[in-house]
Amino acid sequence: MSVEHNAPVRLVIVGGVAGGASAATRARRMNEQAEIILFEKDEDVSFANCGLPYHIGEEIKNRDALVVASADFLRRRFQLDVRTREEVVSINREKRCVTVVRHGATSEKDKTYEQPYDKLILAPGASPIVPALPGVDASNVLTLRNLVDMDRIKARVDSGSVRRAVVVGAGYIGLEMVEQLRRREMDVDLIELREQVLPLLDHEMARPIEDALRRNNVGIHLGVGLESIQLDGDRATSVRLSDGTELSTDLVILGIGVRPNSELAKEAGLEIGSTGGITIDEFSRTSDSDIYAVGDASEPVYGPTGTPMRVPLAGPANRSGRLAGEHAVTGQSAAATPVWGTSVVRVFDVSVGMTGLTRASAKRFGKDATSVTIVAKHHAGYFPGAEVMTLKLAFEPATGKVLGAQCVGGEGIDKRIDVIATAMHFGGTVRDLAGLDLAYAPPFGSAKDPVHMAAFAACNALDEIESFRDSDDSLDEVQVVDVRGAGEIEKTPLREASGAIHIPVDELRERLSELDRSKPTVVSCAVGVRGHIAARILRQNGFDVQNLSGGATVRNRCFE
Amino acid sequence: MSVEHNAPVRLVIVGGVAGGASAATRARRMNEQAEIILFEKDEDVSFANCGLPYHIGEEIKNRDALVVASADFLRRRFQLDVRTREEVVSINREKRCVTVVRHGATSEKDKTYEQPYDKLILAPGASPIVPALPGVDASNVLTLRNLVDMDRIKARVDSGSVRRAVVVGAGYIGLEMVEQLRRREMDVDLIELREQVLPLLDHEMARPIEDALRRNNVGIHLGVGLESIQLDGDRATSVRLSDGTELSTDLVILGIGVRPNSELAKEAGLEIGSTGGITIDEFSRTSDSDIYAVGDASEPVYGPTGTPMRVPLAGPANRSGRLAGEHAVTGQSAAATPVWGTSVVRVFDVSVGMTGLTRASAKRFGKDATSVTIVAKHHAGYFPGAEVMTLKLAFEPATGKVLGAQCVGGEGIDKRIDVIATAMHFGGTVRDLAGLDLAYAPPFGSAKDPVHMAAFAACNALDEIESFRDSDDSLDEVQVVDVRGAGEIEKTPLREASGAIHIPVDELRERLSELDRSKPTVVSCAVGVRGHIAARILRQNGFDVQNLSGGATVRNRCFE
Repeated sequence: MSVEHNAPVRLVIVGGVAGGASAATRARRMNEQAEIILFEKDEDVSFANCGLPYHIGEEIKNRDALVVASADFLRRRFQLDVRTREEVVSINREKRCVTVVRHGATSEKDKTYEQPYDKLILAPGASPIVPALPGVDASNVLTLRNLVDMDRIKARVDSGSVRRAVVVGAGYIGLEMVEQLRRREMDVDLIELREQVLPLLDHEMARPIEDALRRNNVGIHLGVGLESIQLDGDRATSVRLSDGTELSTDLVILGIGVRPNSELAKEAGLEIGSTGGITIDEFSRTSDSDIYAVGDASEPVYGPTGTPMRVPLAGPANRSGRLAGEHAVTGQSAAATPVWGTSVVRVFDVSVGMTGLTRASAKRFGKDATSVTIVAKHHAGYFPGAEVMTLKLAFEPATGKVLGAQCVGGEGIDKRIDVIATAMHFGGTVRDLAGLDLAYAPPFGSAKDPVHMAAFAACNALDEIESFRDSDDSLDEVQVVDVRGAGEIEKTPLREASGAIHIPVDELRERLSELDRSKPTVVSCAVGVRGHIAARILRQNGFDVQNLSGGATVRNRCFE
Repeated sequence: MSVEHNAPVRLVIVGGVAGGASAATRARRMNEQAEIILFEKDEDVSFANCGLPYHIGEEIKNRDALVVASADFLRRRFQLDVRTREEVVSINREKRCVTVVRHGATSEKDKTYEQPYDKLILAPGASPIVPALPGVDASNVLTLRNLVDMDRIKARVDSGSVRRAVVVGAGYIGLEMVEQLRRREMDVDLIELREQVLPLLDHEMARPIEDALRRNNVGIHLGVGLESIQLDGDRATSVRLSDGTELSTDLVILGIGVRPNSELAKEAGLEIGSTGGITIDEFSRTSDSDIYAVGDASEPVYGPTGTPMRVPLAGPANRSGRLAGEHAVTGQSAAATPVWGTSVVRVFDVSVGMTGLTRASAKRFGKDATSVTIVAKHHAGYFPGAEVMTLKLAFEPATGKVLGAQCVGGEGIDKRIDVIATAMHFGGTVRDLAGLDLAYAPPFGSAKDPVHMAAFAACNALDEIESFRDSDDSLDEVQVVDVRGAGEIEKTPLREASGAIHIPVDELRERLSELDRSKPTVVSCAVGVRGHIAARILRQNGFDVQNLSGGATVRNRCFE
């Protein structure tokens, strides 16, 4: 066994949360000789950013649980020189030093100093976007990014002075805040500029989240913007929306997105990418090879396009920090792997996850994408507690390469997203997904897992065994055949296809003469299973037929 | 769009459950012209084999839920010629016909007939092994394979005549039966010939299951066989074990494994493989290209070795049936993918899953395998309800190729197994696992998922950054350093290492002089995290050091 003697190196890290803290601790483990200085402009290092909403809602009761590693702990265990409330304000690349401002300095003389470095890691994160509207500075118009923000919001909620809250932005943080404020029994209104919550999703995949919000008495305002904030002194008392609605409120949470804290890098002349993040190579090195950048302010390779893109998520930040910390003090590490935007959020009893491209984003990126949607149970349907999930799989029609997936439902959606994200890591196709050997027992899954079912459908499309009608495409000017039973159709009609011909699947073979073989035909059922059988029957009888992907269940979501 | 006109073909299928039913329905969807005859020697087709124990325990209350598709349903929807209680007893390959015995025949004349085929699919499944012991024919010594078996067992339990049950065999079915019989408030004893439950697992990974059994007052008898059954008339009243123990009982369930129903194929001169299953190619064709075999009686390619092996699990049976059904009626299909033995079982509040090789089975197959074990929470530790899981990852030391994984704990173990099984499908390495972009939000996972943590450890081993002491290897003749706090050590001592030197990790750098640098050293903590830090400190200070994989938590399981 070889013994390591790593050279002493002075590593300076800017930012002490996910990426920065991961870099610092890995650097120490790799190199006992290194001098490691960790700057954090705020109070706290290494806190659980993603847990903040849950402490406000008191689902996480103990505030201390959110402190992953205190500054003292990092000093003691990892011999890190942690300097909180010290902000790096500029980088002198020639001199290899940074200029630091001490926010806690008591004299002007102590306020500023220079700190030399051999290697520098930038992990400055991102900041909440605050719109340029009068009133956004009001004392009760707040953003949520760190423990101080959290404490400020929670203090207001705890005080009992907040009965009505408005959350602006229906992304991850906005939705988590809505859920947690409802837990605290506030009246909550949610405002989103786009026509749907979670604008990254295909719209019909976001509908079940909107349903969950409505069931939980959240006021939803889609397709409208925040137009003005009315004040009483320094307190917002109401907001006005672009559609004229006025909502009186005691608290406004802004969750409209984040912008990368890339100014420091920009001013130092480091290259900035097309999505506004710091340009990096596979070892997270910027255009200056002594300076690394990780996390929300950087641009890793986005898997679906193979090009750099900001993907401000905690997982990639942590993993890239770890690799950069190693590389900075040893000169080597594994290369970073592409990120796929894999993410998940729970909103009351519904969860939704995604990875890679959606049908809509594929179009935006100019990618040729087909998609199939299936509805299935999260474990064996005959086993108690089976919950329904909708899984939409996007793939390249020419090759079957998986481009992305979205999954919405109750239990088990994260598992399917992770399996598909893993397949995408390897450039897998829908044929690979169809052949995966997944764990099955009745409490956990099905012998044919939802991943298999989606893959089977995709393979059928790929092999031209079956054509699908995407839930986005019109049902005008096609012959629609609803193959469900009469009772079902009455209970849940296919909303916009009043002209549908009703023939139960089991009677289809005998009643082919009732259909017009010359017309392009779309079959529909509840979720697409009987539609599949019907489509196969019709196709083999000379019809030009498509199966409505996801059936009436998914289709109707487009018209809610 | 092309229109299909598949040739009429006469397809005969032997066996109407998982593989056979999947083959039949897929064949119909692919070919409306085919004549499809499905033989099932028993009463029922297409029932949920894996659900049987749960109806006995009344976790699944409704018996009908277990009937996936009745014979009538298959006839109606898929135009299948379903013939139950008809047994195929021989194959005449030259004449391309099978000989059928009608179990329900009323006259000798009607009892036997010949059925011609163009293509034949064998899906005969497997049968429970019954040991050759006097008394095994007793009316209350039973096996569980189909609905009739289930009804028989449940009737006894429902009658109230069973207070004490003995389950022989601690595999999947045995453990599920134990759990469900405890639900019915029986006293249950479990007998297993090997020294552990679930003999496919590495033994320390099976221990938490044994603990769960004990907590639920199951009598466990490991390393002993069933020696004799004492009868009163046709009723077993007690069993004697090889260690002399006598257990009085009202019911004996045999769950000691299955043997493939390959006689029919063997007698027809089809090739049989080395593990006793029917030899097949990638399209499930036997040595006679007009005859296919799928499911428990066949030998698909086992991924970890690349050679044919019987893997009697429901998932592969269903998927191979589907592909064979397509191939038989169209002459083409996707090729089958290797199986990895991916499986999972819930035993009370503990679940365990596995895929691919274990350290022990790798050795048996002559594979060079290293393993690492980590202990982690199933989602963010700061989020309420986090449950502990132990994840053991086996990989090739030369290449880092993932060979297998085992995971035991509460929630979320199936997800990690599925992710790793997916990576194995692609021949992935531990470096791939370390770079996966998995879905993270506090209710679902961690920014560094247990899969990442295990992969990080494996990569550290691979890069010679860290060496691990497998929990199997001795701690004799090494310097053991326990880096936990004194209180922890007192509460949970590292059982067999009474000579361990105690130095808390945070004091290690200052107290190096208390250790002997010339001795091979093993560090230990609770689960391996602090051990990792300590190992890095010691290694960089010239020690030949290993980190005890999984710490005292996993180590102590070896000595229970």
